[in-house]
Amino acid sequence: MTLSSRHPLMDGRTGDSSLITAYRGGKPSRRPVWFMRQAGRSLPEYRQLRKGVAMLDSCLDPQLASEITLQPVRRHDVDAGIFFSDIVIPLKLAGVGVDIVPGVGPVLDAPIRTASDVAALPTLTEEALEPIREAVRLTVDQLGKTPLVGFAGAPFTLAAYMVEGKPSRDHLGPRTMMHADPQAWRALTHWAADASGMFLRAQLEAGASAGQLFDSWAGSLGLQDYIRYVAPASARALDHVRGLGAPLVHFGTGTSELLSAMRDVGVDVMGVDYRLPLDEANRRLGGTVPLQGNIDPALLSAPWEVLEAHVRAVIAAGAAAPGHVLNLGHGVPPETDPEVLTRIVKLIHSIQP
Amino acid sequence: MTLSSRHPLMDGRTGDSSLITAYRGGKPSRRPVWFMRQAGRSLPEYRQLRKGVAMLDSCLDPQLASEITLQPVRRHDVDAGIFFSDIVIPLKLAGVGVDIVPGVGPVLDAPIRTASDVAALPTLTEEALEPIREAVRLTVDQLGKTPLVGFAGAPFTLAAYMVEGKPSRDHLGPRTMMHADPQAWRALTHWAADASGMFLRAQLEAGASAGQLFDSWAGSLGLQDYIRYVAPASARALDHVRGLGAPLVHFGTGTSELLSAMRDVGVDVMGVDYRLPLDEANRRLGGTVPLQGNIDPALLSAPWEVLEAHVRAVIAAGAAAPGHVLNLGHGVPPETDPEVLTRIVKLIHSIQP
Repeated sequence: MTLSSRHPLMDGRTGDSSLITAYRGGKPSRRPVWFMRQAGRSLPEYRQLRKGVAMLDSCLDPQLASEITLQPVRRHDVDAGIFFSDIVIPLKLAGVGVDIVPGVGPVLDAPIRTASDVAALPTLTEEALEPIREAVRLTVDQLGKTPLVGFAGAPFTLAAYMVEGKPSRDHLGPRTMMHADPQAWRALTHWAADASGMFLRAQLEAGASAGQLFDSWAGSLGLQDYIRYVAPASARALDHVRGLGAPLVHFGTGTSELLSAMRDVGVDVMGVDYRLPLDEANRRLGGTVPLQGNIDPALLSAPWEVLEAHVRAVIAAGAAAPGHVLNLGHGVPPETDPEVLTRIVKLIHSIQP
Repeated sequence: MTLSSRHPLMDGRTGDSSLITAYRGGKPSRRPVWFMRQAGRSLPEYRQLRKGVAMLDSCLDPQLASEITLQPVRRHDVDAGIFFSDIVIPLKLAGVGVDIVPGVGPVLDAPIRTASDVAALPTLTEEALEPIREAVRLTVDQLGKTPLVGFAGAPFTLAAYMVEGKPSRDHLGPRTMMHADPQAWRALTHWAADASGMFLRAQLEAGASAGQLFDSWAGSLGLQDYIRYVAPASARALDHVRGLGAPLVHFGTGTSELLSAMRDVGVDVMGVDYRLPLDEANRRLGGTVPLQGNIDPALLSAPWEVLEAHVRAVIAAGAAAPGHVLNLGHGVPPETDPEVLTRIVKLIHSIQP
């Protein structure tokens, strides 16, 4: 399994970009930065485009998804696009009844709670992923030398939505299931791993130059549960995309205690949330991988001098790691002033790597 | 400032109870256990009593609050009552417009976001706390030799509700404010510290034998922010109740990284959430304080043999600490079968301390 010779990573477009160079532990020509959720709610041009279009419909319209992905790249001069989509898209494309309810989040028609619920899950096909490939192709044609980062939800986070049927604070349902019915849990997370893995592979093969696995809810787990009930499925998701030559990033929030275990599922870069300074994260990881992060999104609304000092502190803390890509330590909050993001990019690019 | 000689802790009723003995690092005659949120939604007799009564009204009706506090003690034979109230009660009693909206949580009439908002906050008076004292008196009269645990919200958690005006996932508002306007933040958290401190002192003076500070949202903070912007206010809250002779407990969720800093605000016991095994928590704390916790609430819905093995593992992990009070590692989920809680208490009491 390899990427086509016309893939941006192979034909000279993005292989030497600052993002991919830093992800590979090399010395980039400028300090790379992108923002999780840069494509989306903080941009007026996004809100304009999305008017009257439901979230999942916008993800499945290749033209629209591509345009939304490109908007923040044009506006902020960031060093990567992040593909506009949603972690539940593979569920939707497999035929699971799911929608994104505004102000709530992903809601399933029926929660998946038993072994027979899991056994009855439909199988995601390669054909169903065609709108994703098409959106990625349209996007990378426009991006030129700027790499596109593809992404997928980690199996635990996906399974958490599937078991609860909706967002929840404590994720009691999935956390009960892993202990109460480990076999059904294993089957469910393997299903989710394959769906997410295929979704990510479709993006990479169609032109994305790197891939990020988001385990948004892994922070609700203790280390023992993570290693026993979650890490094997996350490794399985990534098995779908290993060996392509595209750097793989792993990120979760509230996961300071899980960093090494999350690296050990087999990734090239660790994303770090805003809670843990990068020098401490690098120490815990033994200096083994480049880091991505971790500007505190709460500081985006602070006076510029406070924010600038914070960004400089993040850069200083990241200097110890074998590579550093600036990002937020969580997604862009919807109420963020986009001009602040542009100004941060300028600041970061002004500081020699 | 001392407790009256007729206080349960001073007149021989609770001073030698298994709970207080364990909190003080002594050897209790039976293994003490109580459950966070044991009074409340999991009990049919509670749901019956609350019919047609709004949450905050039930907290401010001394007869009702007392009866709700007593229900789980009668039913489960736990080693402590936990006073039925809410962390926003001091706000309500000070005259801040706040209500608990079912399915949402605390909602303020107007969020507190600026220095002038903070300056305009009303002052909580000792007189306003009389319904709390009365409820505690009624309760301890019935509890006999079983100690009552009083509680209050920590200033950060209280301030988080005040700044957002409602529950939030990321607590961006308060986390921005601490950096953007440290003086207003300090004034707000000092106000909250004094309100919570007075609320807790009223409970202790009226008959509660121990006090627990809940910092439910502290897990959203990195260690540096916690130490700089939060710990001083938490210490100030506890200044209101030091020297009474009543053991003080500190608890938060997702706070594995903050344990020592939370101990250092000056408490006798650390509550540990379900994520961190107690032997590891004890190691991080250097064996300095007894621990409370940390049965995973997700296991309450698992088959009994899975739950029993987990409870025994928690007891084994707690053995290293200089004292251990069994509890959950987060509150009782509303859908918990109360018979499971009773069975856990029996199991714990059957194992010699």
